[in-house]
Amino acid sequence: MERTQQFAIGIDIGGTGTKFGIVNHRGVISHKGDDIATNTFKKVEDFVDALYIALKPAIDQIGINHLKGIGIGAPNGNYYSGTIEYAPNLHWRGIVPLAKLISERFGLPSSLTNDANAAAVGEMMYGAAKGMKDFIVITLGTGVGSGIVANGHLIYGHDGFAGELGHTIIRPGGRKHWSTSLDGSLEAYASATGIAITAREMLENSDKSSLLSAYQPEKINSKIVYDCAMKGDEISKEVYRFTGQILGEALANFVMFSSPEAIILFGGVIKAGDLIMKPTKEHMEKNLLPIFQNKVKLIFSELKEADAAILGASALVWEMRD
Amino acid sequence: MERTQQFAIGIDIGGTGTKFGIVNHRGVISHKGDDIATNTFKKVEDFVDALYIALKPAIDQIGINHLKGIGIGAPNGNYYSGTIEYAPNLHWRGIVPLAKLISERFGLPSSLTNDANAAAVGEMMYGAAKGMKDFIVITLGTGVGSGIVANGHLIYGHDGFAGELGHTIIRPGGRKHWSTSLDGSLEAYASATGIAITAREMLENSDKSSLLSAYQPEKINSKIVYDCAMKGDEISKEVYRFTGQILGEALANFVMFSSPEAIILFGGVIKAGDLIMKPTKEHMEKNLLPIFQNKVKLIFSELKEADAAILGASALVWEMRD
Repeated sequence: MERTQQFAIGIDIGGTGTKFGIVNHRGVISHKGDDIATNTFKKVEDFVDALYIALKPAIDQIGINHLKGIGIGAPNGNYYSGTIEYAPNLHWRGIVPLAKLISERFGLPSSLTNDANAAAVGEMMYGAAKGMKDFIVITLGTGVGSGIVANGHLIYGHDGFAGELGHTIIRPGGRKHWSTSLDGSLEAYASATGIAITAREMLENSDKSSLLSAYQPEKINSKIVYDCAMKGDEISKEVYRFTGQILGEALANFVMFSSPEAIILFGGVIKAGDLIMKPTKEHMEKNLLPIFQNKVKLIFSELKEADAAILGASALVWEMRD
Repeated sequence: MERTQQFAIGIDIGGTGTKFGIVNHRGVISHKGDDIATNTFKKVEDFVDALYIALKPAIDQIGINHLKGIGIGAPNGNYYSGTIEYAPNLHWRGIVPLAKLISERFGLPSSLTNDANAAAVGEMMYGAAKGMKDFIVITLGTGVGSGIVANGHLIYGHDGFAGELGHTIIRPGGRKHWSTSLDGSLEAYASATGIAITAREMLENSDKSSLLSAYQPEKINSKIVYDCAMKGDEISKEVYRFTGQILGEALANFVMFSSPEAIILFGGVIKAGDLIMKPTKEHMEKNLLPIFQNKVKLIFSELKEADAAILGASALVWEMRD
């Protein structure tokens, strides 16, 4: 069948909601359903049923022969085994054979990986990384995820779990991560959660007046820090400078690993724009060997955030072997 | 032509000596010449001539039709361009088109990469990584080099310079590197040079008596530290414990990048055996997410050090397309 007549289903599973849609080869989403509340389904089989019922009308309309397969992005999704393994923010425990369950229910081949890897494939297929063979996607949201492409292929590693750059240590002996208990990992600083913690710490350790003082400390989140920084608040700006420094140092390490053409940043934290980008770029360049300096493009994702998860997941389908 | 009748020339260019030999498909070196003193040749063309003259008798004996090509490992060797670029410890300045010069002189295809990448290909072809598709080789010598294999292929990056893990920052704001001026890079601690510096620092900052005190500080090298540690010297043992901690933390970061099946350590520093291996393994495991723990094999290279450089370089030839 010609590529132009083919469609892919993209499913993005998050702790809160699951998004899904049908996508053509150029990245146009033709059918998008309402989000499904992931964790209302105690049994994964019931969740798969709900997905199938929601997608069935669109599948019938397109014709199943025009569907090449189903791509799924999920936390702790393992590409090799098609399983979700011990995802801390999903209710299904242990190892869940999701790709198999979905394939059987839909009668279509399916491919599963974690959400950040799916984002990387999406950028390569439809987004800022089109035509690139070596790049890294860093997702900066509640957590920090990553997808690494080298030689034109995602790096999955020997067990399917490669690309956990959010958990690399960038401040040995530094801030303990609230969930992993690792000391000084990137996610502890460069996630939205980390930014809020930094703001609370800086506020507590400073005598300066700050717009942040208007909030109860536990209510401060990255959105508030951003708003205050935009109003010129010194401490809030310092929070972003510090966050950018740590992120930039981490990116320098990643560059010396795989020497990507570009690093593509994605997710809520990048809404801060230059506030985070300038110190990130400065400290990345500063920590690179000269042979790497001023070569790596540091860019924001071009995918619409609302669609990116579905696009990324669907893009896995075009990577499938026929 | 059948593989069994084919041979490859391996050339390893170092700042001091250049080693070379002819290797068969099983990694047996059939002809090995005397080392050439690299830096006695002011013009690279004269160096290539000397290599050709040294290898000519062996080439004639085997028959040029039985030679598939020439693999070259060299500092700052770029796989894509076949050039050596700004190698600090070679006398030839700027960008040297070495692969082209050698191909023309020998009338054989040639392939060039840096020495650590060559070591990784050597391990995959003849050594501890036989059959592996995802692994990392770390060379711990005067400097710290690395070669990263993912999905069965070396990661070269978009520009041919990937895999400079020795220059990743593991102690932000830490020890300044004597040559790169980066602060707190792995090489500043985990190389033989770094071990000697750590020993001098610990000796200076300690009141304990130490066998190291018998040496002039500037004469202390990693060999002396090793000998003293084996005699039970506390400070020398602490030097290895500290070095292993830093190396282990760095390895944890590398694992979370590419999730290799194994990390293969190679070079002079690993002669310290368990002195370095035990703390390295301990701190690697400690800094890994649970999904990565107790999975990565941390092993020493199985290649004889005297032959490894030639084998690694020659192995590039078997990677060439016919």
